Amino acid sequence: MTTVLNPLAVTALVAALDEHRVMTDNSTCEIYSHDETPRHCLPLAVVFPHSHDETVAIMQIAIEFGIVLIARGAGSGNVGGALPSPNSIVVSFECMNQVLEFHPEDRYIVVQSGVVTAEIDRIAREHGLFYPPDPGSSAYSRIGGNLAMNAAGPRAVKYGVTRDYVMGLRAVTGAGTTLTSGCRTTKGVMGYDLTRLLVGSEGTLALITEATLKLLPIPEARATLRVCYASNSDACRAVSRVMNQAVIPCALEFMDSFSIQAIQTAGAATDLPKGTHALLMVEADGAADDLPRQILALQTALTGAGMLDLQIASDKNAVAALWTARKALSHAVKTIAPLKINEDVVVPVSRLAELVIHIEHLAQSYQLPIVSFGHAGNGNLHVNIMVDPANNDQMQRAKQALHELFSQVLALGGTLTGEHGVGSEKRPYVTMEIDTASLGIMRQIKYQFDPHNLLNPEKLLP
Amino acid sequence: MTTVLNPLAVTALVAALDEHRVMTDNSTCEIYSHDETPRHCLPLAVVFPHSHDETVAIMQIAIEFGIVLIARGAGSGNVGGALPSPNSIVVSFECMNQVLEFHPEDRYIVVQSGVVTAEIDRIAREHGLFYPPDPGSSAYSRIGGNLAMNAAGPRAVKYGVTRDYVMGLRAVTGAGTTLTSGCRTTKGVMGYDLTRLLVGSEGTLALITEATLKLLPIPEARATLRVCYASNSDACRAVSRVMNQAVIPCALEFMDSFSIQAIQTAGAATDLPKGTHALLMVEADGAADDLPRQILALQTALTGAGMLDLQIASDKNAVAALWTARKALSHAVKTIAPLKINEDVVVPVSRLAELVIHIEHLAQSYQLPIVSFGHAGNGNLHVNIMVDPANNDQMQRAKQALHELFSQVLALGGTLTGEHGVGSEKRPYVTMEIDTASLGIMRQIKYQFDPHNLLNPEKLLP
Repeated sequence: MTTVLNPLAVTALVAALDEHRVMTDNSTCEIYSHDETPRHCLPLAVVFPHSHDETVAIMQIAIEFGIVLIARGAGSGNVGGALPSPNSIVVSFECMNQVLEFHPEDRYIVVQSGVVTAEIDRIAREHGLFYPPDPGSSAYSRIGGNLAMNAAGPRAVKYGVTRDYVMGLRAVTGAGTTLTSGCRTTKGVMGYDLTRLLVGSEGTLALITEATLKLLPIPEARATLRVCYASNSDACRAVSRVMNQAVIPCALEFMDSFSIQAIQTAGAATDLPKGTHALLMVEADGAADDLPRQILALQTALTGAGMLDLQIASDKNAVAALWTARKALSHAVKTIAPLKINEDVVVPVSRLAELVIHIEHLAQSYQLPIVSFGHAGNGNLHVNIMVDPANNDQMQRAKQALHELFSQVLALGGTLTGEHGVGSEKRPYVTMEIDTASLGIMRQIKYQFDPHNLLNPEKLLP
Repeated sequence: MTTVLNPLAVTALVAALDEHRVMTDNSTCEIYSHDETPRHCLPLAVVFPHSHDETVAIMQIAIEFGIVLIARGAGSGNVGGALPSPNSIVVSFECMNQVLEFHPEDRYIVVQSGVVTAEIDRIAREHGLFYPPDPGSSAYSRIGGNLAMNAAGPRAVKYGVTRDYVMGLRAVTGAGTTLTSGCRTTKGVMGYDLTRLLVGSEGTLALITEATLKLLPIPEARATLRVCYASNSDACRAVSRVMNQAVIPCALEFMDSFSIQAIQTAGAATDLPKGTHALLMVEADGAADDLPRQILALQTALTGAGMLDLQIASDKNAVAALWTARKALSHAVKTIAPLKINEDVVVPVSRLAELVIHIEHLAQSYQLPIVSFGHAGNGNLHVNIMVDPANNDQMQRAKQALHELFSQVLALGGTLTGEHGVGSEKRPYVTMEIDTASLGIMRQIKYQFDPHNLLNPEKLLP
C-alpha cells in the first residue's frame, strides 16, 4: 500500500494545473481528511481545478496512475460522501466558483460546480428570482455537493429537491469522457435522462463540473406559525391534517419531546407553554393578498386534539423570535452526549405518528436519548441517537436500535434516507431497502461510467 | 427473414398467458401495426399480459427465441415509439389496467402500466386530488406510454411533466430482471435514480409494469383568458412578459397566423376581431379568493403592443366558447394538405418570437404551409409542415425546411423534442443535438439493460 503519491503523478498534475493547486503537504491534506461525520482519512493530495478541461486532465491522470478521486464541495455532507479513501486524491471544486451564464428572463442560471448554494440564491434574488433548494448548509455548501447528494431542506415540502431544479449538467465520467446532458428549456425529452442519473450519484459515476439550474419567482410575502402540542402523536396528527388540505406550506418542521426537553434543559425557549412536548414550525409564502387565506387554512388544519398554543408572525423580528426554540436545538443536542448518530429516515406522512411512537419505544427499551426533529411535511425525520463512542455497551445498543428503526421505517413504507444520502455511513444498510437485482443494475451502471473504479469507490453501493 | 412466429415460441407464450392473450391472426396484428405516425409494420403477434410476472415470462421467452418486443400502451404516440419492427411481438399493456393501491391521505397511487391516464385523474378527483400531467391523448393513452415518452401537456407550464409525478417504478429489463425503483415518499435518495432513467426511455431499456404516482390537491377555481394579437411576434412578446412575472398560468397556449387562417378558412372562430393574426389561450387556477388577483396580474402582462382583444371566462360554457377556435384547429389543419409533419421543438421563452419569425421565413422561402401552435409557456411549439406525400418536390422542400428549423432551434438554445420523444421519426436528427460521447454512454446503458437488443431496438438511439 502506497502512502505517498507517485512523483510522476504529481508532476503530471502540476503540469495540468499549477503547483499552487496540487497540494500534498500534511496540513492541507488534514483539512480535507473529513466531512461532517466523525470519521477521518488522510488523502495523498488535494487538487483544485479551475475548469471543466482541467477536471478532464485530472481524471486522465488518475486513470493513468490508477489513483482514486474523491469529489468534494464544502465537505458539509453528513454521511461521509466526501470522506477520502486510503491513497486517494481529493478533487476540491472550491475554485470552480464562476457563474457562467444567467438568464433571468428565462429563469435559469449556468454555474460551475463549486459555486456556494446560497450565492446562487443571492444572485437570483437580485432579479426577483430565487433558487428553492435550501439545505441547512446552504450558506457554505457548494452546488456540486448538493447535486451529488440530491440535497434538500425545509422548502422541499412545497418546492421539491435539488433534482427538480437541474435542467442539465456537464461532467467527466470515470473513463475521462465529457458528458453533456439535459437542455436549457423547461421541457425536453431527447435521449436518456443522464441528468437525473448523475444527481444523487454521490461522486461515484462522474465529476460534475457545470450545472444549468432552474429558478423561480420570489414569493411576495411569508408568514411563520409556531404551534405547541401536548404530545408527539398530537403534533404528528396535525402534520397529517396539514398535508391533507389544499394549502401546501413552504416549511413544516417538527421537534419531538426529547428535542423540547433538550432545549429547555439548556435554558432556551422559556416562552413555550407548560406541558409542551412537541412543536411544529410552519411557514407559508405567496402573494401578500393571498397570505391571510393560506394562514387561515393552515391554522384550521393545525388546530386539533392536544394543541396548546399557536403563534403567528410575519415581520422579521417576530419570525426570528418564533424560531428561537428551533435554532437553540443544534447546540442543546450537543450537550446530551459526545456523539449524535444522525439518521434521516422518511415515511409517508400518514405514518409519521406511528414512527414517532416507535422511536419513543426504542429510546425506552434501549435506554438511549433519541432526539428527533425535521421535515415532517415530507415525512422526513432526523433521528439522532445520542451516544458516547467510548461506551461500548451503549454503542452496541445504539446499533441494535438503529437496525430496529430502519426495519420499522421500511415496514411503514418509508426509505432510509431522505436527503443525506448513503455515503459510507448508510452503506451497510442499503441491502435492507434495495433488492439484489436492482443493486446489480446499479453496479453495472457504476462499472459503465467508472470502468477503473476510481470515483469514490467505497461509497453508496455495498 | 422469418415472417411467422416460431411455433415453439407461440406454445411457450400460450403456456405463460393463455390462448386468448396470444394473438397471431392478421386482423389483430393489423390493428397493432401502427401508431399516430403514417408508418406501418405488421408484428408477428400481439400479447396481452395481466401482471408483472406474466411480463417477466414474456421477456424470458423473447430472450430464448431471440424475438424483438415492442411495448405498447394505446398507440397514441406521435413519433413511432410503439411502431412494430419487422418480426417483432407487440406487448400490449391494455389488460394491465388495475389500480393496485390508492393512498389519498399520502397523495399517491400505485397503478399497473395499462391504466388510462384520465382514469388515474378521475379516481384521484373523487378524493379531492388530481393527476397533473395532461397529454392531449389522456382520454385514451395508457400511463405506461406516458412514462415511456415522459409525456406532458398544457399544464406542464405550471405543474411539470410525467417525470415529476413518478415516485417509483416496477419494470422488467431486457435481461428478464425485475427492477424496483424509487420509493413511496416525497423524498428519498437511496441509490441511483433508476426511476427517472426509465421515464422517457421509450421502451428501449425495460418493460414498465407498475408505477407509483404523486397526486396534488385540486385547485378550487379556474379561469380562462383568450387574447388576440395583431401578429405572431406581438403574441410571443406577451408570452415572454407573462413568464417574467410571478403568477405562473396553468396553461399558456399559442396559435400562430397560419393556424388562425386555417380555422377561419374552415369557417370557425368567426368571433375573432378583424386583424387577429395570433391567439393566446391562458388559464389560471388556484383558490377562488385568490383567482381575481392572478387574473389581474396575467391581464397586465398580456396587455401590450398589438393586443386587439382580451376575453375572460370562468363559468363552464363561457370557457368552452373561448376554446372554440383552438378546438377547431385539429380539423381545420387536416383540410390544408393530406399529411402534417408534426414537430415538437422547444426554445427558451425569451427566444420564442425569433423562432416564430424564422418559421414564417421558412414557410415563405420553401413555399410550404407551416401551422404552428402549442405550449408557449414552456417555449414548446408544435410546428406542422403540411405536405402531400405524393408530391416529391414538396417532400424534398419539407425535408430541407425541417433541417433548417432544427438548426435554428438549437442555435436559439432549444431542444428538438419537448414532449413527443424520438421514436423512429426523430431518430435521424438525434446527433444534431446529442454529442458523440454522451450518445456513447446512452448506448452502453441500452446494452446494459437490454444485452440482447430485443426492446424496441430501432428507436431513440441512432
